[in-house]
Amino acid sequence: MINFKENEALETLNHSCAHMMAHAVKHLWPQAKFWVGPVVEEGFYYDIDLGDYTIKDEDLARIEKEMKKIAKDGKRIVRVEISREEALEQFKDDPYKVDLISRMEEGTNISMYTQGDYTDLCRGPHVDNEKMCRYFKLIKHSGAYWKGDKNNKVLQRIYGVCLPTQEELDRHLADLEDAKERDHRKLGKDLSMFMFSDIVGAGLPMYLPNGFTVRRLLSDYIMDKEIDMGYIHVMTPSVASTKLYKISGHWDHYKDDMFPVMQDRRDPDNAYVLRPMNCPEHMIMFKSKLHSYRDLPVRIAEIANDFRFEASGALTGIERARAFTQNDSHIFCTPEMIKDEIKGVTKLILDVYKDFGFENYSFRLSLRDPENKEKYFGHDELWEKSEKQLREVLKEMNVPYYEALGEAAFYGPKIDVQVKSAIGHDVTLSTIQLDYQLPERFELEYISNDGSRQRPVVIHRAILGSLDRFIAFLLEETKGILPLWLSPKQAVIIPVSPEAHGAYARKVYADLKAMGIRCSVDDRNEKLGYRIREAQTGKTPIQIVVGDGEVESNGVTVRRYGSKEQTKMSAEDFYKVLREEIASKK
Amino acid sequence: MINFKENEALETLNHSCAHMMAHAVKHLWPQAKFWVGPVVEEGFYYDIDLGDYTIKDEDLARIEKEMKKIAKDGKRIVRVEISREEALEQFKDDPYKVDLISRMEEGTNISMYTQGDYTDLCRGPHVDNEKMCRYFKLIKHSGAYWKGDKNNKVLQRIYGVCLPTQEELDRHLADLEDAKERDHRKLGKDLSMFMFSDIVGAGLPMYLPNGFTVRRLLSDYIMDKEIDMGYIHVMTPSVASTKLYKISGHWDHYKDDMFPVMQDRRDPDNAYVLRPMNCPEHMIMFKSKLHSYRDLPVRIAEIANDFRFEASGALTGIERARAFTQNDSHIFCTPEMIKDEIKGVTKLILDVYKDFGFENYSFRLSLRDPENKEKYFGHDELWEKSEKQLREVLKEMNVPYYEALGEAAFYGPKIDVQVKSAIGHDVTLSTIQLDYQLPERFELEYISNDGSRQRPVVIHRAILGSLDRFIAFLLEETKGILPLWLSPKQAVIIPVSPEAHGAYARKVYADLKAMGIRCSVDDRNEKLGYRIREAQTGKTPIQIVVGDGEVESNGVTVRRYGSKEQTKMSAEDFYKVLREEIASKK
Repeated sequence: MINFKENEALETLNHSCAHMMAHAVKHLWPQAKFWVGPVVEEGFYYDIDLGDYTIKDEDLARIEKEMKKIAKDGKRIVRVEISREEALEQFKDDPYKVDLISRMEEGTNISMYTQGDYTDLCRGPHVDNEKMCRYFKLIKHSGAYWKGDKNNKVLQRIYGVCLPTQEELDRHLADLEDAKERDHRKLGKDLSMFMFSDIVGAGLPMYLPNGFTVRRLLSDYIMDKEIDMGYIHVMTPSVASTKLYKISGHWDHYKDDMFPVMQDRRDPDNAYVLRPMNCPEHMIMFKSKLHSYRDLPVRIAEIANDFRFEASGALTGIERARAFTQNDSHIFCTPEMIKDEIKGVTKLILDVYKDFGFENYSFRLSLRDPENKEKYFGHDELWEKSEKQLREVLKEMNVPYYEALGEAAFYGPKIDVQVKSAIGHDVTLSTIQLDYQLPERFELEYISNDGSRQRPVVIHRAILGSLDRFIAFLLEETKGILPLWLSPKQAVIIPVSPEAHGAYARKVYADLKAMGIRCSVDDRNEKLGYRIREAQTGKTPIQIVVGDGEVESNGVTVRRYGSKEQTKMSAEDFYKVLREEIASKK
Repeated sequence: MINFKENEALETLNHSCAHMMAHAVKHLWPQAKFWVGPVVEEGFYYDIDLGDYTIKDEDLARIEKEMKKIAKDGKRIVRVEISREEALEQFKDDPYKVDLISRMEEGTNISMYTQGDYTDLCRGPHVDNEKMCRYFKLIKHSGAYWKGDKNNKVLQRIYGVCLPTQEELDRHLADLEDAKERDHRKLGKDLSMFMFSDIVGAGLPMYLPNGFTVRRLLSDYIMDKEIDMGYIHVMTPSVASTKLYKISGHWDHYKDDMFPVMQDRRDPDNAYVLRPMNCPEHMIMFKSKLHSYRDLPVRIAEIANDFRFEASGALTGIERARAFTQNDSHIFCTPEMIKDEIKGVTKLILDVYKDFGFENYSFRLSLRDPENKEKYFGHDELWEKSEKQLREVLKEMNVPYYEALGEAAFYGPKIDVQVKSAIGHDVTLSTIQLDYQLPERFELEYISNDGSRQRPVVIHRAILGSLDRFIAFLLEETKGILPLWLSPKQAVIIPVSPEAHGAYARKVYADLKAMGIRCSVDDRNEKLGYRIREAQTGKTPIQIVVGDGEVESNGVTVRRYGSKEQTKMSAEDFYKVLREEIASKK
């Protein structure tokens, strides 16, 4: 997706287009007064005072028509500079412009841009001629308090975009449409995945049966993979005494992002807090037992419920919520084991990405800023050694990566995996972080092979990141058409005639159930076409139609979501195909 | 387990034994002064002032020896009544007795009991002769503040039990030993199931890998059963706005049992709280969609993390903790559906109990107290009808039950399933509750077949109850020897010679892994006997020994936990046995 503020030429073009829109509005509403019209990430807007008039959807087309006329007319855009005093005199009837001019320092010159019969104050720069702004689109409108203060008047804000060619405009509008369709909040609602409730609280997702099924499948998937790689899973409570976070340092560094404290009513020395992360609990667990170097590495993993009190403005569906579930692990090892452990985690990441078909990602090696060493915990030798180790792992594993100075955590260097999303966002899904600080704070130890007590290193790692954000990401990537193995409902069996073919449909259903397929029979007394269409709307991956032919031949006619093609095959062959497809996570 | 306060004869006997213990203590420590010596559930104790002396473990044997001598001596126990004034004079050198006597009303007579050279104030009654107290045992000792006030002196408290015959005493002591061995807190620690940490907080269990494995198996087990019965699973957040609990009524009725409130730092009108139960969230979920009578019943289920701020004195391992996980569900249905739904739940309960081999349980039909109708929500007709419905279900299903007047919830009648535990406790594992109140409070509706809006009924139900309490119960029932399908580690494969038979052991391991068996190979360079013993100590259900004979014949030698018998069989036959045993949940 284009960021219009990040490209100078596009920024100028859109700024000029904002003026041209004002020019058109002035033609349609001569009494209109204009506040500011800046370029923003998604294009431009202008805040306009139309007296008591409120812009309606249909006004956008009228304004666009007038803009087209103006663009065709092709007036030059001319810059003139006048003194502050002259400007105040010229705009004395426009309180908005007077407000703007008054803020300029006395004695400064003020630039104005004139295009045909329209003049506006502006610092510029602008394009030369209004005809350059002819490939535009008005996107939406809303009310906006003057200066953002809700005691002020509501102005009319109109958003638009402008591009240098019709082709680029068309592509951008298609991208916008695509992004809207991929928005996980919309898809989550359409597919009954999750909901929110003001009474329960902002940012606290409630997973509906479809969403829970996906969560359960994802948890099982990643836990089983982890078990195969020698991880051990635990469950620790979501609430803990503030004492714990004072030891870990979260209390000092992270308090503002945590939920408010729960003060024990019976004991003034005791208070609890919802945990923002579960590292401290895992430290306590490791410490509860005496470890020998022979027991290491210990890989404690948890599908962990964590809570962060995000500002309400930052909340974004399940992508950024106040309650979320981490696919977290802490690996406790000796310094000598670091490389092998990082390799293991990297292998797991690559393995998972392959299962999900992610191809557009890059590894970022996040290093210390060598100019600001005092920002980091631990001595030079340790940092150099561990940065070298991480780099060696990536090289030895032939993983493409780039280095980012100053992106390390204060407690150690890390590897972040950035995945490019379908709408062009860079999302950090996985992370591997070396930590020398928590073992110190919790005074963790193991008995080394010479009998001395040594401090282990901790590797924090997340593969799917948070399950919630991962589901949001998957929905956006797939437009809600999840891979078969993850679909809450995998198949619907539709008897042509519920009466004549219902029994056979239920036999197929029983077979599929026994294979662990999530499916249902649609034997309602509705037309066949209606039932097929409804299965398509619900994005059910597989529709199985059974009629006379299928009953006779012990077969099925299979249709995939989004395809018009129908394949007739024997039930046995179909079951085999299905089993293989699910096992291969296609 | 005997409750000594609930049996009058035993109460008297133990009270007399407390006196006899004091008699013996007086012989051994002539300076001893005595406070009170009551009978409690588990026997008797006496609080004694021994000056600066603190009772040691070995003193108990000395006191027992002296008690035996006294019992053999067989002095009569004689009651005498004197006036309050005479008593004050007689005991004037004993501040404890003076304290007790001073509390009596003036003018009352005071009874004293004398046995040989020992006299004590006492209301009685007592047995006739000290020889009747000869079958006793001193159990433990501790310090106890005088009058329970920590500003007072610490007295020596000695606990004991007394029974009428040696046989009964032996049986009781064996029961005590058994209960100690079955204590889930001890077993949970021995088997590395869970741990607690003062830094994390009292009553907040941390499940170690073994405990988490059992939790995961139990959740999957019950969820899969529920799915087969048409339940849909959701996940709702553990924290919610206090608004939610104000609507549900928990705020008014349950606030004191909830965790302290989290006051939003940014918004004084907003506060959050950890949920004590998840009914309100399920109401919100039901309400988020318009339901027709055709959609009902809707069975919303959740493996839900709930939190209650139990008093620290009430906390008991994972049986009673501050964080726990409910196997909860709410069924939303029409009044006509109640009977079928209750039947379905009852069937599920019976099914689960059969899987776990529970046989010693009873259904309690908890009805309204007809003398106190005003305590309950809803009108007479509704109560009579729904009580009748529950009774009919139990009768029609041929389930033995008893009725308990006044045990209904204020919102409706219920069925509680009481399971008798191995140490004789009655534990409520499952519950089915009719609720007419929450649908009212949340204004739930469905469209009935005549098009009108109707209020659904809610059935609350829990099958395993809380997973935590269920695991505590299972540990106590099985002494930690969980059924094979639930064992965190199911088998260990022990090659006779790690070198010669290691490869074959790993082949067996790979086969078992592929079958989903949780197992390991013990190929340490330790003696065979040592490795077998260690597997027994860890309560691993199956030990597979492989040596020359097994390698040659592609076989295994299998030994079960707790048995000395070894069975040699082909690997294929063994795998078949194992698969069947796990599938049958034996």
